[in-house]
Amino acid sequence: MSKGQQTRREIISGALSLAGEVGLENVTLGVLAAELELSKSGLFAHFRSKEALQLAVLNEAIERFTATVIRPAFEAPRGAPRFVALFERHIAWVRDAGYPGRPSEGRCIFMALSQEYADRPGELRDVVVKSQRDWRHLIANSARMAMEEAHFSGEIDVDQIAFEFAAIGMAYQHSQKILAERSAEQHARIAFAALLERCRVVGEAGAT
Amino acid sequence: MSKGQQTRREIISGALSLAGEVGLENVTLGVLAAELELSKSGLFAHFRSKEALQLAVLNEAIERFTATVIRPAFEAPRGAPRFVALFERHIAWVRDAGYPGRPSEGRCIFMALSQEYADRPGELRDVVVKSQRDWRHLIANSARMAMEEAHFSGEIDVDQIAFEFAAIGMAYQHSQKILAERSAEQHARIAFAALLERCRVVGEAGAT
Repeated sequence: MSKGQQTRREIISGALSLAGEVGLENVTLGVLAAELELSKSGLFAHFRSKEALQLAVLNEAIERFTATVIRPAFEAPRGAPRFVALFERHIAWVRDAGYPGRPSEGRCIFMALSQEYADRPGELRDVVVKSQRDWRHLIANSARMAMEEAHFSGEIDVDQIAFEFAAIGMAYQHSQKILAERSAEQHARIAFAALLERCRVVGEAGAT
Repeated sequence: MSKGQQTRREIISGALSLAGEVGLENVTLGVLAAELELSKSGLFAHFRSKEALQLAVLNEAIERFTATVIRPAFEAPRGAPRFVALFERHIAWVRDAGYPGRPSEGRCIFMALSQEYADRPGELRDVVVKSQRDWRHLIANSARMAMEEAHFSGEIDVDQIAFEFAAIGMAYQHSQKILAERSAEQHARIAFAALLERCRVVGEAGAT
């Protein structure tokens, strides 16, 4: 990696941490330069605008999520094991990851961005929305594979299952990070066990 | 209501709408004065600081939630009917309310604030967190009453049920407002029906 590339990565990494504290919208070149003790013109050589920097930060977060959650989960056999592995990795992501060095607190950047950009049309919102839809489709597809492997009932509605999987993840993040509930992880695990049970029982899962 | 009180209410109402667009943190006296076409000194007469204004906005949102969701739901008989009414009112709140005049879009102010203030200690975060905990306790208490009325199994864990109730609400808001999913409400209703079924079946609900 060249010196320039390395600096670029350091800037993105710093901006990602900062976004977790103040919101991505508030990560400006000026604020970030002060935080990283770089000159504003030095930053400007790497990112020509606030928007370009913000997009790079978002793409870095997506890449970290892929490397930390998705790729390891896909090492599990397809079907129920992979579906469960996705849940476990996601729980671990919310609990530990996202913000290096600040494991026990911090916003989930995707949850924060979803709310932050809900009403602001533009490329950034499009990428945020796409990342959330991709995650939902990935869960639905892994449920579909579990159906094909006959681990799950053939009657489940995989989009419904993906909605509920995502719901548990959101409530876990909210309970853990914002309400600081000690039983957050236990609640998430019991909810997931109930969802898994519905996936497995023939004739009871899916749309009614 | 005096002229002063009325102006104060108009300011709060305008600030609440604006908070839905740009985030409460970005609702400054200057921005709001421009938006409402008032003088900054006129605003300052009503709110001595940005923080005082933000707190008033948050309290207004809590009051609206109470008036729109909680009070009407409490007209339903205690037990399962009230528990269901809380869900129905909450779904309607996410779908329609919160931002007058902009029914089909907008962030849920509580979801947005939760993420926005997760890492910013202070009175505002305390009030946000308290409002979220109060909502969770209210759901748990209404599940407890349904147990006492023998509408729900005596074996349910009411905090677990409240976690899952909240999870459905969050995923609904996210799916509806951010992913613009047409089936968001249907997904939420099926998930809630499954939760209700677990509450009702003796010996299957609650901690396992």
